[in-house]
Amino acid sequence: MSKYTLVIHGGAGTILKQDMTDEQEAAYRKGLEDALNAGYALLEKGRPALDAVKAAVISLEDNILFNAGRGSVFGHDGSQEMDASIMDGKTLMAGAVSAVKNIRNPVELAYTIMTKSPHVMLNGQGAYDFAKLHGIKTEPDDYFFSQLRYDQLKQLQSSDEVALDHNIIVKDGSPYAKASGDKEKFGTVGAVACDSQGNIAAATSTGGMTNKQFGRIGDSPIIGAGTYANNKTCAISCTGHGEPFIRAVTAYDVSCLMEYKGMSLEKAMHFVVHDKLLKLDAEGGMIGVDAKGNTAMIFNSEGMYRGFRSSDGRSEVAIYK
Amino acid sequence: MSKYTLVIHGGAGTILKQDMTDEQEAAYRKGLEDALNAGYALLEKGRPALDAVKAAVISLEDNILFNAGRGSVFGHDGSQEMDASIMDGKTLMAGAVSAVKNIRNPVELAYTIMTKSPHVMLNGQGAYDFAKLHGIKTEPDDYFFSQLRYDQLKQLQSSDEVALDHNIIVKDGSPYAKASGDKEKFGTVGAVACDSQGNIAAATSTGGMTNKQFGRIGDSPIIGAGTYANNKTCAISCTGHGEPFIRAVTAYDVSCLMEYKGMSLEKAMHFVVHDKLLKLDAEGGMIGVDAKGNTAMIFNSEGMYRGFRSSDGRSEVAIYK
Repeated sequence: MSKYTLVIHGGAGTILKQDMTDEQEAAYRKGLEDALNAGYALLEKGRPALDAVKAAVISLEDNILFNAGRGSVFGHDGSQEMDASIMDGKTLMAGAVSAVKNIRNPVELAYTIMTKSPHVMLNGQGAYDFAKLHGIKTEPDDYFFSQLRYDQLKQLQSSDEVALDHNIIVKDGSPYAKASGDKEKFGTVGAVACDSQGNIAAATSTGGMTNKQFGRIGDSPIIGAGTYANNKTCAISCTGHGEPFIRAVTAYDVSCLMEYKGMSLEKAMHFVVHDKLLKLDAEGGMIGVDAKGNTAMIFNSEGMYRGFRSSDGRSEVAIYK
Repeated sequence: MSKYTLVIHGGAGTILKQDMTDEQEAAYRKGLEDALNAGYALLEKGRPALDAVKAAVISLEDNILFNAGRGSVFGHDGSQEMDASIMDGKTLMAGAVSAVKNIRNPVELAYTIMTKSPHVMLNGQGAYDFAKLHGIKTEPDDYFFSQLRYDQLKQLQSSDEVALDHNIIVKDGSPYAKASGDKEKFGTVGAVACDSQGNIAAATSTGGMTNKQFGRIGDSPIIGAGTYANNKTCAISCTGHGEPFIRAVTAYDVSCLMEYKGMSLEKAMHFVVHDKLLKLDAEGGMIGVDAKGNTAMIFNSEGMYRGFRSSDGRSEVAIYK
């Protein structure tokens, strides 16, 4: 029986201690702890890594603080389109969904595409139709509506900018939007896990960019870019500026550095995040695990919401550098 | 000044000499020659590899015989949705479009996304809106309609199957559909080139699968899967069963084998096509070029429509094994 472990992230970017209230920090930490609890409980019961990453991402999707599922940001047309992907390192099977609306848990849909269709990636209305056929839970627009996300959209629509994430302040118990200035956060959530059988898996989910236009697809639903898993090497979930992450084929690059150059998980992730991505001006980070249960959480931005828990007793939840 | 060279493909699959009439074979050969002429003329004038691959793919998109642009197959709902991508090995810039309708040349749109937007990948109606803003040529449904493609759809709708390509017979000067049986062809076109400056580029375009449903996205618009280019290693365009090509991150895998393991272009392509893809039951092939103008065209199917022309005088157009 292997060491088992779960690693999660809730986005990376310009996340500074001085910009956070104690209350805000506590809310994010609780969201991360909740997601770790949801996924780790399954690993403890001997369930596969695939189930653990799905459960952890569902917990983050259901949390309004994170830009995925319920907390998704608004696109330019006022709708909320979501992307997600999942990959099983044991079988190399994968599922992904892009630009889908009204799905409560896009990662659940990605999982169902992987397990119940001959396809890897479904998009938009077609993906929604597939979800309905397979009993995937949908929610009305109201479920996804929050004043703070809507205020973010209005702020950006007036400036004709897009924002890669949410800047949120929690005050008097409620989150609200703050002016973002030049600060960027990358609103994605993700999880990677190694189970007691030594199987690994990865999942990623996002609501994309506030004020996004033209049906833009980022790296989160792209197998090889935002998500990759292979028992021979690693399971990776990325968060960051999607475009250079696609161009760098980021998640699979870590796997190739391990498989073809013999690098360790941490060394490969460090090289990709601090060398290759920086050369493309790409800000962000990633979490990773290998089939021995080794973990890493690496980012080149000011902060990354992140955490892990391992059967060897190690555990951490962190936000800043 | 380097050797310059252009390589193209028009899809792979069960393409057998005994199934082809002389007339049919001549029509395909002419289509491939026309595309080589269009792209190679630009390389001869010293124009960049990027322009050459775009011109070659446009020629194939405009040819009704190939499943891309004008010759695109019909989806389940009777519409024609197209995917394309392009990547510049010099800058690692990339552009891609998925599920777009009524665009005459999807590769032109992918190029415009690369050069005139901050994004890599646009989808569906949003991609169409972006195209209109930038003066990309559109065509009415009539332009894309052909009786043979429509007959293929009707044939498959009645069996509730999807087909990864077109089986076409050319007889009395006109192409028409034939019953496909168990034979699969993968309808994609693509080009890779190395220019006289030693810059390389890749482009891929497809009309997808006949009778496709649920907004399925294949490997063609996925940077790293269907298309990849990097002056340090190679430019690759794939054709085959999209789903395993996505799971294998096929095009980028060739690049990683060259960069991290020191394999030659041909050895890396051979390993990916005849070992890694076969382990995933993936039928298809790919074309490749490196920055010295070396070329390869490798497939594990019965045939692949393909051709190349090089400034060292070598030239070939071929269909079968």
